[in-house]
Amino acid sequence: MLESRHRGAVVAVDGDGRTLFAVGEMEAPVFPRSACKAMQALPLVESGAADAYGFGAEALALACASHSGEPEHVALASEMLAAAGRDVGALECGAHWSNNQATLIEQARTLEKPNALYNNCSGKHAGFICACCHSGNDPAGYVGYDHPIQREIRSVISHLTGAILGRDNCGIDGCSIPTYAVPLKGLARGFAKMATGIGLEPLRASASKRLIDACMAEPFYVAGTKRACTRLMKTAPGRIFAKTGAEGVFCAAVPEKGIGIALKCEDGATRAAEAMVAATLARFFADEPEIHAALMAQANRPLRNWNGMHVGDVRVSAPFTA
Amino acid sequence: MLESRHRGAVVAVDGDGRTLFAVGEMEAPVFPRSACKAMQALPLVESGAADAYGFGAEALALACASHSGEPEHVALASEMLAAAGRDVGALECGAHWSNNQATLIEQARTLEKPNALYNNCSGKHAGFICACCHSGNDPAGYVGYDHPIQREIRSVISHLTGAILGRDNCGIDGCSIPTYAVPLKGLARGFAKMATGIGLEPLRASASKRLIDACMAEPFYVAGTKRACTRLMKTAPGRIFAKTGAEGVFCAAVPEKGIGIALKCEDGATRAAEAMVAATLARFFADEPEIHAALMAQANRPLRNWNGMHVGDVRVSAPFTA
Repeated sequence: MLESRHRGAVVAVDGDGRTLFAVGEMEAPVFPRSACKAMQALPLVESGAADAYGFGAEALALACASHSGEPEHVALASEMLAAAGRDVGALECGAHWSNNQATLIEQARTLEKPNALYNNCSGKHAGFICACCHSGNDPAGYVGYDHPIQREIRSVISHLTGAILGRDNCGIDGCSIPTYAVPLKGLARGFAKMATGIGLEPLRASASKRLIDACMAEPFYVAGTKRACTRLMKTAPGRIFAKTGAEGVFCAAVPEKGIGIALKCEDGATRAAEAMVAATLARFFADEPEIHAALMAQANRPLRNWNGMHVGDVRVSAPFTA
Repeated sequence: MLESRHRGAVVAVDGDGRTLFAVGEMEAPVFPRSACKAMQALPLVESGAADAYGFGAEALALACASHSGEPEHVALASEMLAAAGRDVGALECGAHWSNNQATLIEQARTLEKPNALYNNCSGKHAGFICACCHSGNDPAGYVGYDHPIQREIRSVISHLTGAILGRDNCGIDGCSIPTYAVPLKGLARGFAKMATGIGLEPLRASASKRLIDACMAEPFYVAGTKRACTRLMKTAPGRIFAKTGAEGVFCAAVPEKGIGIALKCEDGATRAAEAMVAATLARFFADEPEIHAALMAQANRPLRNWNGMHVGDVRVSAPFTA
C-alpha cells in the first residue's frame, strides 16, 4: 500500500544546455538554497583568497558545505577564519544545534550551546569573510544584499544559470544571506558549466573545477557522517558531485560525462529529494552495474521502526525507474 | 513567491456521518498511525482496568499520547506499569531519543541512552499491558497481530470507522503494533462517534467520552511542551480534541458541536497537517473571534531563520480559507 506520495521536478543537462532527462516543470523558478553553495564559493577562489590563505581541498569543500557541525567541521571553519585574521565573532550566520542526532547528542554533552562555527553554513560564511578580507573589503555586514560579496555572488549565479537576479526573486536563506529563485533548468545548466567549463572564461572554469574536485575529494567536509551528499559522492569517488539544499532541492554533476542536474521536491521533503537525485544519477551509470546498484539502493531504501523491523520503503516511481 | 506546496485531504463529519467540510479524496484508505490512539485506548477503559488501577485523566491522556519523553511523561508511564505490577521490561515498543530538540538535549545530558519508557508511545503501550493484566491475559507479545489485545483493538476500530480491518490493509507502526489503512471519512466518523456517543452502546460511549475528556483536560500528557496537539487543545480548553499521527495525519473533534475531523497530508509532512487541522478547526469557531484567530495563527505561521529574521510563512490555501 502507498502511504505517502511526493512530487517533484528534475532536469539533467549537458554543458551545451541540451536536456538529457526531465520530469515535471523545468522552467519554474526555485530557490536553490544551499544546493548552490559551490557557486557561492567561486569568489573565494577567483579572488585569489583561497591560494593566499593556503586552503586545500578540505577547506574548499567546507566552503561549499552544509555540514553537520561535527568537530572536524567546526575546527576547520575556525582555521579558515584564523587564516584571514578573524574569528567566530565575524560570522553573521547565527547558531544552531546539529541537525544530525548523534552529533547533537555529543554537542549537548560537551557544549552549553553551540556558537556560529557550528552552523551548517559556517564554512560558506568563512569563505565569504576570507574573500572579503583578501580583496580589502570590510566583511562586516557581508550577509546584506548590497554588500560587495553578495553583489559578486549575484553576478556569478546569474552568469552560470542565465537567470536575472534581483530584489524581485530574492529571499533570505536560513543563514541570512540572499537566495534567488532561478529556473530549475538554469540551475542544472550552471552545474553542467561548472563541471565542464564549457562557456566559462579560464579563471572561472578552473575555479569551478577546483571547487567541484575539492567536494568530490573530501565529501565528509561537504556534509558529514551518514549524510546523503557524503554517501552519494563516496559511491563513485571523484566522479559524482552532489549537494543538498533546504526545501527538497538537490544539485549534482557527473563531470566526466559533462552532466549537471537540478531537482526540487514540490513539498520540500529531503527524503524525496535524496531518492530523486540518487535515481537520476543512476541513469547515467547504467553501464556500471555496481555503481548503478549502489545508487538505486540510495533511491529505494527500507524504513525500519524503533525495534529495527522493516516496516516500509521509500521508492522512486515510474519516471525515475524507466 | 511560493517555495513549496503540500496537498492533502480533510473531512469533517457529524455524529450522524453527514459531511460538513471536505477537501480532496475522503474515501481513500490512510494509515491513521498515532492519530487513532484514543481508539486504541478504549479496551483499557472498557475492560475496567483504568478503574481498577485508579487511573485519572493524566494516565488516560498518556494512554492516548505521542508524548515527547519529558520527565513527567516517563514517570507516569512507569507508574501505570507499576499499577499492574509490571515495569519497563514489559514494553515492546522499542526506544528512541525525544523528537523534541530541547528535551533531547536534556536527555543527552542525563541519560546514557533512553529506555522504552521514553518512546513516544510508552503510555499507549502501558495501557495495553494494563488492559491485558486486568483481563488475565499474558501481555507478552502484545504487539502481535493475533494477540487478544490487538484483536480487540481491531474490533474497536472497525466498529468506530465502519472499515473492515485485516491482513490486507495492515501495516506495522513505528512502535511495532498493527496499523490499518481505513478511509479518511471513516476515521472522521469514528471520532465524531467518540465525541458524541451517537451510535455507541453505553459502555463504549462513556469510555469514549472519558478518554476524549481526559485528553482535553490534560493536553500536556497527550504531546508535550511546544507540541501542536497540546497547543491546539489549550486554545479552547475542554472544547477541542486533537491528535497527530506519523506521515501527515491528524484527527480532531469538537465534542460540543458533535464534529469529528480526519486529515492526511499527501506527502506525509507534519507542518502541513498541523496547518490543515488548525484551519479546519477554525471553521467551526467562526462565531468566536478570539478562538478563531488563535487557531488561524497556528495555521498561518511565520518562519524564522537562525538569526530570528522572518524569512517566510506557512500558509493554508483556498479550500481552508474560504
